[in-house]
Amino acid sequence: MTAYNTRFHAYIEEIQTALAGCLPAQDSLQGEVARAMAYSLQGGGKRIRPVLTLEFCRACGGDTRAAMPFACAVEMVHSYSLIHDDLPCMDNDDFRRGRPSCHVAFGEATALLAGDALLNLAIETILTRADQNLLSPSSILRAAAVLFGCSGTEGMIGGQVIDLANEGKPVSEQVLAQTHRLKTGALIKAACVMGAVAAEADEVCVRAAEAYAENLGLAFQIVDDILDVTGDAAVLGKKTGSDAANNKTTYVTLYGLEASREMAAALTERAVESVRGLPMADSFLPDLARSLAQRVK
Amino acid sequence: MTAYNTRFHAYIEEIQTALAGCLPAQDSLQGEVARAMAYSLQGGGKRIRPVLTLEFCRACGGDTRAAMPFACAVEMVHSYSLIHDDLPCMDNDDFRRGRPSCHVAFGEATALLAGDALLNLAIETILTRADQNLLSPSSILRAAAVLFGCSGTEGMIGGQVIDLANEGKPVSEQVLAQTHRLKTGALIKAACVMGAVAAEADEVCVRAAEAYAENLGLAFQIVDDILDVTGDAAVLGKKTGSDAANNKTTYVTLYGLEASREMAAALTERAVESVRGLPMADSFLPDLARSLAQRVK
Repeated sequence: MTAYNTRFHAYIEEIQTALAGCLPAQDSLQGEVARAMAYSLQGGGKRIRPVLTLEFCRACGGDTRAAMPFACAVEMVHSYSLIHDDLPCMDNDDFRRGRPSCHVAFGEATALLAGDALLNLAIETILTRADQNLLSPSSILRAAAVLFGCSGTEGMIGGQVIDLANEGKPVSEQVLAQTHRLKTGALIKAACVMGAVAAEADEVCVRAAEAYAENLGLAFQIVDDILDVTGDAAVLGKKTGSDAANNKTTYVTLYGLEASREMAAALTERAVESVRGLPMADSFLPDLARSLAQRVK
Repeated sequence: MTAYNTRFHAYIEEIQTALAGCLPAQDSLQGEVARAMAYSLQGGGKRIRPVLTLEFCRACGGDTRAAMPFACAVEMVHSYSLIHDDLPCMDNDDFRRGRPSCHVAFGEATALLAGDALLNLAIETILTRADQNLLSPSSILRAAAVLFGCSGTEGMIGGQVIDLANEGKPVSEQVLAQTHRLKTGALIKAACVMGAVAAEADEVCVRAAEAYAENLGLAFQIVDDILDVTGDAAVLGKKTGSDAANNKTTYVTLYGLEASREMAAALTERAVESVRGLPMADSFLPDLARSLAQRVK
């Protein structure tokens, strides 16, 4: 196992344990929503965002224990957004990560509330689990402001709204880039920046985290667009060809496969460049960026 | 105008101005969700919760400006919960406060996202607008923890889940009380306690806020049950008789109208008792409790 894989898997194990410890009890009167939350939050996923939070904290010289509540919170926000995105009134997706989506497994009403509850739990996790012995209250407030600034109307939700407004319509490259910057980029940025804030790092580090996240986020989305054309549905755990079926403008429809691959590669190298100067920089963040560019799911 | 009415209306004006200042711009690419948020957040409502937050801050000797972000946040949480409650997969209510509900006016997808965005805005409002010159970062964290502890699975959402699980079934008095304690009581408690925390009041004050809220919250719900039987749909702005039509267990079905009225009156007087010792106590909180017990909508 490479050093990258070893550290990645160690982070994943710590994150799974921490997430499990945050979920509400399933044996209460309201146990059904707790089961739906666990089903979605623990039902796989790459855990890229929480890994980024922990790693940026480490690379900026911090104690990753200080970053764990933020890592859990960003994954909860991501998980809630997927539950709500899959609902019949949104994308109406019956499958997610190769299993029935939350509303198929638990019904629409419970899935709606499970999504709401995961967003609420993200906030609660930061407010009640951020360790005031490791981090000042004002750093906790700052990290939370980064996350929820990136998940609201000026971030992730804003991107979903723009996406919805342009459904089935051709869009310009500017609108496409803005949609991605908000819909998926903002939360990746929050993940990276919260790691730097959890390390109480200086502004140079925070800007490096932003630059890495912006380049990685756009590369990630372009690879998503490529995989929707070239990917294997069985490996991806979801249908392919859905962008074409929905007449969706993507990087592939705008530039073609070859140019899209080149753009993703160039953005990945820019992400790699941007973190070279971090106090505890090593090969992990470059390896992570390159592995995302080469992923098949 | 009585002193009570004068202060109440002054609070309402301040709250409307503050809420308007928190809403996102409507002239952006994502303007549609901003319009849906404004439609629901500014579409009437009694504003009981934010008034309680401001008044508890004042009655505990605090500066109400310190409490305003918390007052706005609790109203945003209330507003998001109504949007999601009205959705077809939940209560499927086409009307709210005498107007089309959010999903009827804006479509289901936008209403879903507007609800998500209002919950997100509640936390953003606290994180970015709580004034660190008036309040310490740790008091801000504490007030936020009170709100989101009361709005999640151990509070409001939990109550909605229990309610959903028992739809159309007769329930015991214990389950009914627990449902109300969580579904509506928890957020009223958060409103009162955040006011005390914004005043940096002592634990005696915090306990008085809790006791007032618990008694007021249950009385409020019993009056709701009574109005569903005796109320005027035109005055209420919503259908009456829906509890009976849905075979719902209520205080009225368990105890009858007369005993329910007596319970509401007794709880109201207990609420009044509990705030007698607050540093700046006057007749406002007693008047508020009594006016809610006597309301016709």
